[in-house]
Amino acid sequence: MRFKVSSELEYQVLSDSTFVLNIHALRTPSQTVLEESFLIAPYIKSEELISAHGENRFMRVEVPGGTKLKVIYNAVVDNAIRLIDYSLLNDVPISELDSTVLTYLYPSRYCQSDKLYRLANNKFGTIANAFEKVLALTEWIHRNVEYLSGSTNSQTSAYDTVTEQAGVCRDFAHLGIALCRALTIPARYFTGYAFKLEPPDFHACFEAYMGGQWIIFDATKLSPLNGFIKIASGRDAADAAIASLFGNVICQSVIVNSECIENNFDPLYYGFSQTQGLNYL
Amino acid sequence: MRFKVSSELEYQVLSDSTFVLNIHALRTPSQTVLEESFLIAPYIKSEELISAHGENRFMRVEVPGGTKLKVIYNAVVDNAIRLIDYSLLNDVPISELDSTVLTYLYPSRYCQSDKLYRLANNKFGTIANAFEKVLALTEWIHRNVEYLSGSTNSQTSAYDTVTEQAGVCRDFAHLGIALCRALTIPARYFTGYAFKLEPPDFHACFEAYMGGQWIIFDATKLSPLNGFIKIASGRDAADAAIASLFGNVICQSVIVNSECIENNFDPLYYGFSQTQGLNYL
Amino acid sequence: MRFKVSSELEYQVLSDSTFVLNIHALRTPSQTVLEESFLIAPYIKSEELISAHGENRFMRVEVPGGTKLKVIYNAVVDNAIRLIDYSLLNDVPISELDSTVLTYLYPSRYCQSDKLYRLANNKFGTIANAFEKVLALTEWIHRNVEYLSGSTNSQTSAYDTVTEQAGVCRDFAHLGIALCRALTIPARYFTGYAFKLEPPDFHACFEAYMGGQWIIFDATKLSPLNGFIKIASGRDAADAAIASLFGNVICQSVIVNSECIENNFDPLYYGFSQTQGLNYL
Amino acid sequence: MRFKVSSELEYQVLSDSTFVLNIHALRTPSQTVLEESFLIAPYIKSEELISAHGENRFMRVEVPGGTKLKVIYNAVVDNAIRLIDYSLLNDVPISELDSTVLTYLYPSRYCQSDKLYRLANNKFGTIANAFEKVLALTEWIHRNVEYLSGSTNSQTSAYDTVTEQAGVCRDFAHLGIALCRALTIPARYFTGYAFKLEPPDFHACFEAYMGGQWIIFDATKLSPLNGFIKIASGRDAADAAIASLFGNVICQSVIVNSECIENNFDPLYYGFSQTQGLNYL
Repeated sequence: MRFKVSSELEYQVLSDSTFVLNIHALRTPSQTVLEESFLIAPYIKSEELISAHGENRFMRVEVPGGTKLKVIYNAVVDNAIRLIDYSLLNDVPISELDSTVLTYLYPSRYCQSDKLYRLANNKFGTIANAFEKVLALTEWIHRNVEYLSGSTNSQTSAYDTVTEQAGVCRDFAHLGIALCRALTIPARYFTGYAFKLEPPDFHACFEAYMGGQWIIFDATKLSPLNGFIKIASGRDAADAAIASLFGNVICQSVIVNSECIENNFDPLYYGFSQTQGLNYL
Repeated sequence: MRFKVSSELEYQVLSDSTFVLNIHALRTPSQTVLEESFLIAPYIKSEELISAHGENRFMRVEVPGGTKLKVIYNAVVDNAIRLIDYSLLNDVPISELDSTVLTYLYPSRYCQSDKLYRLANNKFGTIANAFEKVLALTEWIHRNVEYLSGSTNSQTSAYDTVTEQAGVCRDFAHLGIALCRALTIPARYFTGYAFKLEPPDFHACFEAYMGGQWIIFDATKLSPLNGFIKIASGRDAADAAIASLFGNVICQSVIVNSECIENNFDPLYYGFSQTQGLNYL
Repeated sequence: MRFKVSSELEYQVLSDSTFVLNIHALRTPSQTVLEESFLIAPYIKSEELISAHGENRFMRVEVPGGTKLKVIYNAVVDNAIRLIDYSLLNDVPISELDSTVLTYLYPSRYCQSDKLYRLANNKFGTIANAFEKVLALTEWIHRNVEYLSGSTNSQTSAYDTVTEQAGVCRDFAHLGIALCRALTIPARYFTGYAFKLEPPDFHACFEAYMGGQWIIFDATKLSPLNGFIKIASGRDAADAAIASLFGNVICQSVIVNSECIENNFDPLYYGFSQTQGLNYL
Repeated sequence: MRFKVSSELEYQVLSDSTFVLNIHALRTPSQTVLEESFLIAPYIKSEELISAHGENRFMRVEVPGGTKLKVIYNAVVDNAIRLIDYSLLNDVPISELDSTVLTYLYPSRYCQSDKLYRLANNKFGTIANAFEKVLALTEWIHRNVEYLSGSTNSQTSAYDTVTEQAGVCRDFAHLGIALCRALTIPARYFTGYAFKLEPPDFHACFEAYMGGQWIIFDATKLSPLNGFIKIASGRDAADAAIASLFGNVICQSVIVNSECIENNFDPLYYGFSQTQGLNYL
């Protein structure tokens, strides 16, 4: 399915600064970037960096102090996602995990799975199948955490959200990841453009590893699962922030858009008795 | 009902130290101390302090460094508790709370009710009656938190326990108190001698204020609710610790005992459809 | 010295709510309320509550939902403060503390002195005299913590501020209190009207107990120490908040004023080699 | 310099478990494993995993429940370390960091650099050179944090240690890393065998990136900096734990040894006016 995505960011750069921007659509076996433009005004040279395992594709830009910076990204991207039957989505024994996946079992800055071990296992430990476990915990987050703009900040972590029960998409994702890892299911942060997200913005959710595949889950249920264009994945928001700014910078506006340019888009949300998981890549 | 209670504490006092001991049975309208002895060996003068609202009755002792200290307390105490019908145990409007009770609505060191507001209200907010609310949250703690000796320390608070789901009586009490306060029900920490507690030790639980009365609750369910001899109440363990030691002191042994000296003791635990609350005044 | 103080608060009350307001000048041996008016518009009956040890004097008001509430307080108050020589301001042994003072040694919600024990003793433990210790830690807070409006919220505590090094007057006070208690010096939260505070607002600082007296300290250094009219003291902001609101209420404006109505006001700030401490009450 | 290192671990394995062991000497351009043996008794097949960037070389072993497991590792390893003049060890601009190094700028589970930004910059921000900055913060940790066995646990993080000021080598390393990252200096966790460490054990310290090199620092100062055989590096202990055990396992003994088998070992510790940094690659 083809999508047209765009973002437009404006910054007031007060001192010489380095930007690490994570807004490009990722190129993966299941996601093809058909057209793409990246514009920085005023013109400044930028450098594309791609992380070791292809989870990120970020632009690094050196910006002199005193610049009013505008960054515009446009792309047409085709995502070829797959639905996989839940009977194939069992827990993968730790002894069979690839070392690049094993990493996503360990606790990280915003996903302190080591502190949620009992809670996760008390609530979801007896569910037989990995897909059903993660479906259940996603549903539990959805029912218990209130989506509330401005209720959290960049330091908020899963350990806070599990108790404070309010947050934004980032917090929903972190809690989902932490619970998965506490259940010994590898899980990673996913950022992307999201079709039909209201109001339009960058979105975050998570992927859990089961049956040898990364399956996507979104406890916010704010946009269809099959309408994402993936930007990055990582351990948590520390790895995959939209923008990491080193310097004295004020963000002045963020405009994000995503539209499907085919006319047979059929929105997919998981239901309570969902029997298929969605795989990007 | 009359109980014979005792405690015997041994300390190695390495430097000149001040002990604030909270092991005496409280004297209240519903609790009469019939006989009592308090012995310090070697002999050191001690001073009894009684807090403003009668929630504590503690002994202060100055102990020189190099002392091997033994403290022995024995008492026969009569507790005259009352069962009150739950229909009388409604929420008291804040506008009718006495200022000495209002205090117990505010967050304290180990009971960060301000952080549990959503969780408490999501889970228990729609239950109509204060008694039923606190019964429900006590049951919830009992089912979700594992009693596990040594799993926590003196810095563990309700905010930790709600997520980590393991603790000792102190932690169960702190979580109960925090959830009550988050529901705008005043609640306080209760320490005492507990008949039939295995292994014998000092015990902690909590009281919640409803219908103009303090009603006792114990999420550990480790000993009958009608078998307590009250030592102290306070905002949390910071106020009502068994011993606050200022100096370099090693605790070497704690022996606690409680026995009922009447033969018609009928152990009371709240059931799921409990209709009466127990009041120690 | 006589001061004219006033405050004017406006609220949009969305549901039936209870207000506990802590804006009245306290009556103490050293502070005399000469004139006073308290107005609620529209007229609603209010009730004055005075806490057990006279640390608070708060008004409780029941407000129906749908009210646009205005509260106006005006007073003329005379404070008779004393300067006490630091040689008289030594540590009071715990064995000589009154039980009403002992309370202020224990950790509280926002002042987790139990977690700052090593830090406080490493930095300030070897200073001989209580006054000099607290002077040093106040100076240390002043140098290390940046006053930054909006940097913290109602859940921020001393444990956060000691590391994050930014905050408002409330946070400066909590950190001061926590460090004192970690040094076994009783300390309490102090709120008041502050002459020459810019911009005008309610202010918070702290009092530490030494030589049998409560001595005032203010790590923000934002207003003269001798220009306060005391509203309340308490363990921390949980006890002495300006307004505790139970219900759905939006605060719309807070206007505070304080002026000295004598013309010989001589502003006092502690210096590095300060030899006298200031006592209110 | 050649070292003979060994470790012997014993476990009681109660349920079927997966072990991920991180005890092998790493093979790097500057570290050559001359001889090596790895023995598991009873015999169980193990699998060696090497992480993407060569920071780890771990063994994965599936162990059936009911096993009394013994793991023995022996190696002779040659480390060829380099001393680099501090004038070459300047901050690397973010715009010149390789993407594999950039990762080590972000906060991680135990190194919440985002919360230490002000503290790090207030204390060390004005020091001109990266090497001198990290030397200063290492010294500061050494002076302020007490090495105290048993004072912390597996959940303790840099955010705790900066205030609580006690810990073990893991905590010293985490705090060092967090402070470096807060100063925009990439830093990573380092585990290894340590010659002359008393009592012998695995050791942890950290590396900071400067002048295009990873330079080693150890705030514990418990063993010479030139006596390490590197086992692993990672973001923090979550990545580079000696043993990650999935299952019900009791560790019964850990015996570690390291000796230099050349006789011209000249122990190196950084001094206050150190002018050269040590690089293990």
